[in-house]
Amino acid sequence: MLRAELERYIHEHIPLSRAMGVSVVSLDESAVALQAPLGTNINHRGSAFGGSVSALAILASWALLHVRLQGEGVVDRLVIQRNTMEYQQPILGPFTARSRLVRPERWPQFTAMLARKGKARIAVSAVLEHAGHLAGTFTGEFVAFGASAGGSGAGGA
Amino acid sequence: MLRAELERYIHEHIPLSRAMGVSVVSLDESAVALQAPLGTNINHRGSAFGGSVSALAILASWALLHVRLQGEGVVDRLVIQRNTMEYQQPILGPFTARSRLVRPERWPQFTAMLARKGKARIAVSAVLEHAGHLAGTFTGEFVAFGASAGGSGAGGA
Repeated sequence: MLRAELERYIHEHIPLSRAMGVSVVSLDESAVALQAPLGTNINHRGSAFGGSVSALAILASWALLHVRLQGEGVVDRLVIQRNTMEYQQPILGPFTARSRLVRPERWPQFTAMLARKGKARIAVSAVLEHAGHLAGTFTGEFVAFGASAGGSGAGGA
Repeated sequence: MLRAELERYIHEHIPLSRAMGVSVVSLDESAVALQAPLGTNINHRGSAFGGSVSALAILASWALLHVRLQGEGVVDRLVIQRNTMEYQQPILGPFTARSRLVRPERWPQFTAMLARKGKARIAVSAVLEHAGHLAGTFTGEFVAFGASAGGSGAGGA
C-alpha cells in the first residue's frame, strides 16, 4: 500500500482524521508514521490536546496492522480492546506517532491463528515525537477477526 | 459553572471538541457527562473510532477537575500524565463519557497539596456508554500545577 493510498483511506473512512489534519509520513512492513499539526489539535494551554495525541497513536497502530494484513491479502476487521498512553512532554508543534509491533516475531502465529480460528490478538506500540524529542508512549491491544468469523468485537479502532 | 459555559469554553479552547460535536450533558461537583454523535466520530467499520472514544473520556475527566478547581477559585493548570482505556462494546450511535474522581475522599488532600507545594496528582475515571449500555472504561492520572508553580508538565489534557 502506498502512502497516498493509506492517507486517502484514513481520511475517507475516519473523518476525524481529516479534522485533525493527519498525514501519512511513511509506511512499510515494520512501522507506520503519522503526523498531525498543532493548530487543529491545540488545547487551552497552547499544547497538543491529550485526546488528539492518543487518537494519532491509535490511528498509527491500527494502520500498521491494516497495512500488513492487506499486504497478505487478508480481509481484516480490527478492533481495539485496550490501550495505555503516557504523556511525557508537552507538545508545542507538529507531532508524529510511529507504530511498531510489540513482538514482531509473533506475526506468523498471529496470522496462522487468524486463519485457523478466525480471531487473533496482537499488541502494537507507538512513540510520539515532537521536534525530534520523545513526547509520549502508547501501547494498544487489538483483536483481528477473519472474513468468516462472527465474533463480537469491542470499539472499532 | 454552567453547562453552556463549560461547553463554550471547551469548544473555544479545544477546537477538536467542536469537530467531534462534543456537548455537555450535565455537570456538578461529582461528575461531568459529555456526549458526542457517531457521525463525526465514525470509523471504517461504522462504529465509533477508538481515538474519539478516548478523547471524549479525556475531555470529561479534565473537565471535572477544571470545574471543581474553578469552583474553589483555584487558577489551574492541568496536564494528563497517563491513561488507560478499555473498549468493551462497539459504539453504534451517540455516546457519553461520565467522569468521577477515583477517590473523592482525597480531594481535600489534593487541594491542600496544590496550595502548599504548587503541584498535586489526582486520578479520574470515566465510563463510556452507548444506548444505556456500558461501552468502555477509562482511567487517567492528572497533575495540577498552582498559579505560582513552575513545573514542567506532560501533554496538556
